[in-house]
Amino acid sequence: MTEPRITIIDVARAASVHPSTVSRVLNRRAELSLLPETRQRVITAARRLGYRPSALARSLRLQRTFTLGMLVPNIDNPFFPPIIKGVEDTAHARGYNLVLCNTEDSSEREDAYLRVLRERQVDGILIASSFMADATIAELRRDRFPFVLVNRGTRGSDDLAVLVDNEKGVAAALDHLVDLGHRRIGIVAGPQTTMTGRQRLTAARVTLRARAVKLDPALVSVAEAFSQEAGYRAARRLLVGVEPPTAVFGANDLLAIGVLRAAREAGLECPADLSLVGFNDMPLTEFFGPPLTTVHVPQREMGVRAADLLIAQIEGKPAATRRVTMDVHLVVRGSTAALSRSQQKTA
Amino acid sequence: MTEPRITIIDVARAASVHPSTVSRVLNRRAELSLLPETRQRVITAARRLGYRPSALARSLRLQRTFTLGMLVPNIDNPFFPPIIKGVEDTAHARGYNLVLCNTEDSSEREDAYLRVLRERQVDGILIASSFMADATIAELRRDRFPFVLVNRGTRGSDDLAVLVDNEKGVAAALDHLVDLGHRRIGIVAGPQTTMTGRQRLTAARVTLRARAVKLDPALVSVAEAFSQEAGYRAARRLLVGVEPPTAVFGANDLLAIGVLRAAREAGLECPADLSLVGFNDMPLTEFFGPPLTTVHVPQREMGVRAADLLIAQIEGKPAATRRVTMDVHLVVRGSTAALSRSQQKTA
Repeated sequence: MTEPRITIIDVARAASVHPSTVSRVLNRRAELSLLPETRQRVITAARRLGYRPSALARSLRLQRTFTLGMLVPNIDNPFFPPIIKGVEDTAHARGYNLVLCNTEDSSEREDAYLRVLRERQVDGILIASSFMADATIAELRRDRFPFVLVNRGTRGSDDLAVLVDNEKGVAAALDHLVDLGHRRIGIVAGPQTTMTGRQRLTAARVTLRARAVKLDPALVSVAEAFSQEAGYRAARRLLVGVEPPTAVFGANDLLAIGVLRAAREAGLECPADLSLVGFNDMPLTEFFGPPLTTVHVPQREMGVRAADLLIAQIEGKPAATRRVTMDVHLVVRGSTAALSRSQQKTA
Repeated sequence: MTEPRITIIDVARAASVHPSTVSRVLNRRAELSLLPETRQRVITAARRLGYRPSALARSLRLQRTFTLGMLVPNIDNPFFPPIIKGVEDTAHARGYNLVLCNTEDSSEREDAYLRVLRERQVDGILIASSFMADATIAELRRDRFPFVLVNRGTRGSDDLAVLVDNEKGVAAALDHLVDLGHRRIGIVAGPQTTMTGRQRLTAARVTLRARAVKLDPALVSVAEAFSQEAGYRAARRLLVGVEPPTAVFGANDLLAIGVLRAAREAGLECPADLSLVGFNDMPLTEFFGPPLTTVHVPQREMGVRAADLLIAQIEGKPAATRRVTMDVHLVVRGSTAALSRSQQKTA
C-alpha cells in the first residue's frame, strides 16, 4: 500500500492556515506581510509531514488561488443569501474562499464583474446572474475557464448548471389555486429577458390549459424585475381591471409581496378577497401577514451542489453529472383560501 | 482659465469602457484578452480627448485597480443589502467596482477575507464586519491601507467610520414601550462580543433607569448572534419565566422576529399579549404579521456615506469628517400596543 500523498491542504490543516498561505510561504511569494510566526508554523508543518511538492502539484499550486467568484443578480433578493451560504460552507470545507459581485440585473455590470473576477484570478466562477449574454459565456467556454450556472441555463449547450424544476413548481402552485376553486387567476410574471421569467410564464400557461382554465390576457402582467416594487407596479395594472382576479400567482416571492401591497391599497384582504402564491420560499416568508403560500426551493442545497460541481471541475475531476435539477414542492400557508361566495359574485 | 485635466475616467467615459480597461490598454497590461475593437476605441478616445498622463496620474493609475472590497458579517441579514447597494451605486458612479466577502461573524473568516481582498489588490476596504480583532485593524492603519468602518467603530482611534446613533434609537424604542404603559420589559440583546450588541444593551439599561423602570435581570437574554434563530432561543428563555414580560425589545429586527416566533409557540398574540420592537427597519418589515415597530436606520444612505469616505481617502482628498453618525427614528407599526387589563393581571 502506498502512503497517501501529502498535499498542500494537509500542510495547511496541520499549520491551521489557509492553503493559499502555505502556497505563499513555500513559494516565497509573500507579497503581503505574513507574521514570522505563521511562516514558521507552515514550514514546521511541511517538514513534519514530509511535504514534497510534485511537479504537477507545484504547477497546479502556482496556478491556483483557492478563491471562487460568484455573480449574484440581486443581493437584495432574500432568495440568494442561503444559496451563497451553501456555496460558502462547501467552499470553506474544501479550502476555498468566496468573493461575490452583485450585478443588479444589468448585462453591463455582469460583463464588468466577470472581468473583475478573472483579473483577480479566481479559480472558477458561479454565475447566478441571469441577463448575461450567451457570447460572454461562450468566451468562458472557449477559454476553458471553470464555471457553473446557478438557477439559469444556456440554450443548446451542456454547461455545468444547477437548475430549479420550474415546471413542477409552477404546476403545483396553479393546481393548488384551481383546486381551491379559482378560475380567474392572474399571473405576475418575471422579466421575459430572463430564463426563469420565461420558463415560469410558459409553465403557467401550460398548467392552466391542462386544467381547462382560460387565461385571460388581461390577467397577465409582466414585471420588469424580480423585485417587490416591480411586482407592486405589475399588480396594480392587474387589480384595476373590470373583472379582477380572485387569485394571483407571483413568479417569485418578492413579486408576490408586491401583489400583497397593491391588494392592500386596493382594499382587498388576502386571502379573503385575493389568494396569493409565490415561488422560492425565501427566508422569513412564514412570518409575513399572512404567511405566504409558496413553492419551496432548497436554496442552501443548490449552493452546495453548485460549489461541488465547480470545485470538481477546478480540480480536474470528472463530473458525475452536468446538470442538477433541484426538486421543489408547494408549501401551503395562510395566503391562499378556497374561492368564497363573495368572490364568486364579483368574479 | 485652465482647461480641466483630462483624466483616465474621461477617456473611459468617451470609450464606454471601465477605467481599468483604459489603464490596461494604455499601459499595455492586457493580460486578459481584450477585443481589438475595444482597444482601438480606447486609443481613439484617448487621442481625441488629448489625454496625457502626468507622472502623478501615471503612478496613481498604476497602483489602482478601481475595485473596492467590502466585508459583510452576515449576508443573510436583510439589513446589509441596502447598505451594499448604496456603496455600489456610489462606487459605480465614481468608476469603481465592488467585491464582497461574507465573514459569518467569524474572526477567522474576517482575517482570511481581509487577506483575500488585499491579495486581490482592491484599492480600499469597507469593514461592516464586527468581530474583527483590533490588531487586524491596527495592521491596516500601520500599512496606511484605505479602509472605512461601517456600523462599528474602534475604541480610542479616529478611524474613518459610519456609525448608527444606537443610543437615540434604543431610547426611542424603550420610551415608546414605557409610554404605552409597559413596565415588565424584556430585552433580547445582541452578542456582547460586538460593539452594536454592547451599545444597544447599555443604552437600554440607561433609558429604563432614566424612566425609573426596574430592569429585572431575568428579563435580559443575550442572543449568541444577530439572527432569527438566536433570537428565538434567547426569547424562549425569557418567556418561560414565572413573570413573563408584557413587551420585548429585540436588539435588531431578526432577533425581534425570533421573539415573535417564540411568542407564537407559547400561545402569545402580538401585540395583544406581547408588544415587540425591533431595530434597523430592514426591508419588508412592514409586510410582517403584524408589521414590525422598529427603529429606522437609513441603510442605503449609510452605504453612500461610507463609499464617499473611502473613495475620498483612496483619491487622497482630505476627509471633511472622520466619523459620520446616521440619524435614526422610531417607526410605529402594528407590533406594539398599550398595556391591556389582561396583561396587567398576568404581570
